[in-house]
Order: sequence, then C-alpha cells, then structure tokens
Amino acid sequence: MNILEKEITIYDIARKLNISAATVSRGLMNHPSVNVNTKQRIVETADQMGYRSNHLASNLRKKRSNIIGIIVGNLNSSFMSNIISGVDSVLSKANYNLIISQSLDNIDKEVNIAQAMYNNRVDGLLVSLAYDTENAEHFESFVKRGIPLVYFDRTFPHEQCPGVAIDNVKAAYDVTQHLIEQGCKRIVHVTAYRLSAVALDRFNGYKQALLDNNIPFDESLIIYTHLGMQDGEKAAHQILNMPERPDAVFAINDACAVGCLLELKKHGINIPEDIAVAGFNNDREASIVEPNLTTVNYKGYEMGEVAAQILVDRLNNVTDTVTDNKLILKSDLIIRESSLRKK
Amino acid sequence: MNILEKEITIYDIARKLNISAATVSRGLMNHPSVNVNTKQRIVETADQMGYRSNHLASNLRKKRSNIIGIIVGNLNSSFMSNIISGVDSVLSKANYNLIISQSLDNIDKEVNIAQAMYNNRVDGLLVSLAYDTENAEHFESFVKRGIPLVYFDRTFPHEQCPGVAIDNVKAAYDVTQHLIEQGCKRIVHVTAYRLSAVALDRFNGYKQALLDNNIPFDESLIIYTHLGMQDGEKAAHQILNMPERPDAVFAINDACAVGCLLELKKHGINIPEDIAVAGFNNDREASIVEPNLTTVNYKGYEMGEVAAQILVDRLNNVTDTVTDNKLILKSDLIIRESSLRKK
Repeated sequence: MNILEKEITIYDIARKLNISAATVSRGLMNHPSVNVNTKQRIVETADQMGYRSNHLASNLRKKRSNIIGIIVGNLNSSFMSNIISGVDSVLSKANYNLIISQSLDNIDKEVNIAQAMYNNRVDGLLVSLAYDTENAEHFESFVKRGIPLVYFDRTFPHEQCPGVAIDNVKAAYDVTQHLIEQGCKRIVHVTAYRLSAVALDRFNGYKQALLDNNIPFDESLIIYTHLGMQDGEKAAHQILNMPERPDAVFAINDACAVGCLLELKKHGINIPEDIAVAGFNNDREASIVEPNLTTVNYKGYEMGEVAAQILVDRLNNVTDTVTDNKLILKSDLIIRESSLRKK
Repeated sequence: MNILEKEITIYDIARKLNISAATVSRGLMNHPSVNVNTKQRIVETADQMGYRSNHLASNLRKKRSNIIGIIVGNLNSSFMSNIISGVDSVLSKANYNLIISQSLDNIDKEVNIAQAMYNNRVDGLLVSLAYDTENAEHFESFVKRGIPLVYFDRTFPHEQCPGVAIDNVKAAYDVTQHLIEQGCKRIVHVTAYRLSAVALDRFNGYKQALLDNNIPFDESLIIYTHLGMQDGEKAAHQILNMPERPDAVFAINDACAVGCLLELKKHGINIPEDIAVAGFNNDREASIVEPNLTTVNYKGYEMGEVAAQILVDRLNNVTDTVTDNKLILKSDLIIRESSLRKK
C-alpha cells in the first residue's frame, strides 16, 4: 500500500495497448472515431490498471463537480434525517451526489465547513444555520461566485438565496391557543438559552396567543435551556419549585418536552390533568413517550425535497418555480394525550 | 448570478496590484521573501476579488484533499449520529474535513457513492456496509490505489482494511442468557428478513444460549422483518396469534423492540410479567418507552473515534496501533424494567 504510487495516465494505457494516447483519450470519451473493439479494450485496460477518470482535472475544465453540499446543525434527530432523505431523493434523480457535514451548532466549525465546501467546488449548497449563527458572511463567497445556495429550516434573509421554512410564529401560536382551550392559564415556555430567529418566532407566537386570550405575559414562566432531553429534566425541577404551580408546559422541541414530561411524572405529576405538555417537531420519541406528546408536525421530508428542487432548478437556470424568495411550508398541530384535558 | 463567470487567477490579482504573479503566488503561500505589507495587500485583494485557493488544482499536484469520506447505511438513528460525532472529533483535531453519504441500505447507491468518493479523491474512507451488501468489490479501487479504508460496525473481512465492531455473537448470547435467567423459555427472536453478517452473528448467539441451557431451538419462534418500528408492531400481532404464547421477545434493534412492546401493551399484555422484551443498540427511545427497554449498549461515539484514529494513523503511516486487523469493542447488556421479572 503506497499512497505515493504513481497516478495511472492515458499514456500508461496507450503504452500497454501499443496505441496512441489520443486514441485512448477518444476511446474513454466514447468518441465515434474509435473502433468498438478498441474502445472495449481501452476501457477494460483502464479499469484493470486503476485509471481514475480524472474527475478533478476534468472538473477544473468544465467547472462542475456534480456534488451538492448540505450543512446542518446536527444530524441527531429524526427530523433532520427526514430532511436529508427528502434532499437525497431529489438529487439522486437529478444525478447529483450529496455530501453532508454537520456544524455541531458551532459557528467556527460552520465557517470551516463552508470554506472546505467552497474550495472543493460543490455545484450548490443547502444550509440550515448553526444555532449561534447571526450573520451569513461566510457564505458570501458562494453568492459572489454564483453558486446557488438555498437555506432551509434555520434560514437567513438574503436577496439571492431562497429560504424554505415553516411559519414558526403561527405554529407556536396554535400550540399555545390549544393549551388555553384545554383550560390552561399558567403556561411555562421552555425555550433556548439564547434566542435564535426560530426560537424568537416561537416565543412571539406564544406571547401573541396569551395576549389574544387576555392572559398577562409572565416572565417568571419562561425557562431558558440548551434544549436537550436532560435540560428538559432540569426544567421539570424548576417547574416543581415554582411558588405557584403552572398548568402547562410548551417546550420548543420534543427532546426537551419529553425529558420534562418524564421527570414530572416521576414526581407524581399527572399528565395532562395536573400539567399539560406540548413540544415541537414530531420527532419519533413524541409517539413513544406515555402519554404521547402533543407537538407540531414539521414535514421534514417535504422540506428537504422542496429545498433540493429549488437548488436543482437554479442549477438548470429554471427559476420560475420560486415566486417568492421565502417559501413557507405548512406545519400541523398534532394533538395527543399529553395535552388533552377535555376529551 | 452567472455560473460561467471567469475564475479569478493570480494573474488578475497581480494586474490589480501591479506586481508580478510570482509575488502573488509566494504571498498567498506566506513565503518569507515577500514583504509583510505586500502579503497583507495580496491576501486582502484576493479575498475581495473572490479568488479561490484552487484547492482542486493544488490537490492534483500534492494528491491530498484533506477530506475523509464516510459511508453509512442510514443516518436515521442516534447510534449512527453518535458514531459520526466520534469520527468528527478525531478528524477535526487532525485537520480533516468529513463528508458523509448514506447508502439508504441500497447496494446500488453504495456503489455510486463509492465511485463518487473515489473520483473526488477522498484521502481515506470509513464504511459501514449497506444491509444488502455481500461483497466489497466496489471498494477495491481504493485498496488498489492505497487509499486507506476502515470498516466499522457492518464490516467486511479484508486483509488490508481493518474493521471495528462489537462481538455480536456474545452480545446476543448475553441478552438471551439474561432472559432465560428471568425464567423465560419461549423466546421469540425478531431478526432481519435476510440475514446480514451482523444479524447472523446475533442469531447464532441466541441459538448458542438456548443450547447451553438445554432449551430446544424452535424455528416457529423466529420472526423475519425489516426491523422498523412498524415492523415491530406487526411482529407483536404474529406473537399474539401464536398457538402457544411466548414469554419473551428479543429483537435485534431497539426501534423494532419498541414498536413490538407498545403494540403488545395495547393488547393488554403486561411487560415484563407476561412477555419480557429486549432490544439492541441503546437508542434514545429505549429509555423513553415504558417500561424502559433492556438492550445492548454499543458505544457508538467510541466506535467512531477508534475507526477514525486508525484511519488517521494509516494516513500518517503509523500502523502499530492496530495489532489485529479486526478490533472488537466492548458492548454492555443494559438491564431495564422491560425484562426484569425477578426484582
């Protein structure tokens, strides 16, 4: 095994077959001037010798890599794997290979990955921003170079880069409205330790629903966390220690809602009678936890498909599919037993 | 936005700054012969003009892309995202970027991805085979070319490609032995519709434990499925329809075990008193489902780290870390309430 082994060239193939390098080259490109039998021998010999089609060099010439990059915050959710499956299905049909990188919600890592994808010349890029990302300067090189970039889920407003997302204000409004209709008045909102655009939208939806129902907003009912399952458990302890017990919890993701629900149950709280619980995302655990979790169903697969299709259309210079720069997908409130007090 | 916009070269930068292209080139490579202020101007101008370091061309020369590829069957499990996090942590430290592709457990897609990764010249490759893959010929091009390849989890025996996995025979033996110790005698084994090497190992572990406990193997207790959560639900119906009711279920993954457990509960079966249930993988849902699921903890993060480290060592021509070609990681039986009859 020798990494520095010499790269096989068309000259090596030509020497082996005792024909000209030009013939080898034409044969490999399936040129009509080369005899079928000769072509066959060229291809077989190239294969035996381990010849690589020299994609890199050929990419340099035609400036197409046929690779699409996707950058996501974290692969660790069924929601994100659904998105990637949707993307994969569209790109496979369009003959692109997908390469995936995760920023682990770290802005520095996101900058590095973006640079690597740029240098390795992806033909297009799909991005869901890291949780902490506040600007998108590290993607400007793509814009300048005319490489199509489509944001999804955690989007960034940009004239040349379409975004695909759901209406987070409305979805959070619907969850809160549902809890109020179930008779809840002291609704804890479990949100992110630092408000991203998505978290802020959901926060605003929550507040607006309270306002519309004449329930005063109470800052002491807001819990800021890192949104993991264990953070949900910690949130449960904060809730149990509140001087006046809340009657509902609305966490902005399912992992956190599930952790909170299980910990409240452990402490003898009846769900939903004592405290109703709702999450967001419709991750797999939402229908495993007991009682099953009320949540917002976010069509991950569809979001992936739509974002990938916009990208492919841009690569083919078809742009009429997007009339608006921001595409809002439908999301649905899924009411399950964790919040259903009125049956 | 014009995809065909001309690529910026060092000549463009040189013209703009009215210096020689050679100086620009040396400046960009941080050569000591170039004055610090000039370097600064060169770098700034290159940046403004959207110059790309021409990684591709430079990769062609030095034959290093600094990219490692990883091919997995499916990203859709917390186990797999743990593996990828482990890989990511080692590669980041070694200054490699990781690109991920999923075969969706489809051998044809795996062949395509392997080809794309080869043509795009990853420096090394990590592979967990698609469920259906029976030979590894499509990876021979890497071996021939001296590109290090390390298998993990679903490995393939190959003299030049190390594999990192757990002892699936032993782990399945331990699960079955535990169920027998809890008083179970009619243990259903839910396995894959077609036996991969991993599934076969677990099947053998199950059979060996029965044998060692003088329990005759009964083919009518074996259920062959596609191992999804819904397949687990279907398995539950098969179990409920068996003429003599089994007293335990051992499914070879958690998703399937959880689906089966929930469906059995819906039909009034007490878990673990009537039927004990055990899974495999220690996915997140195993500690969400009630009762919590007995399973095998597979250290995904560690497996990712170890596989990546072997790869990095090979890239650096350090090979003494692997004494054997197959590295067996420890796995642990996690006993939870779903199987605990004797308390």
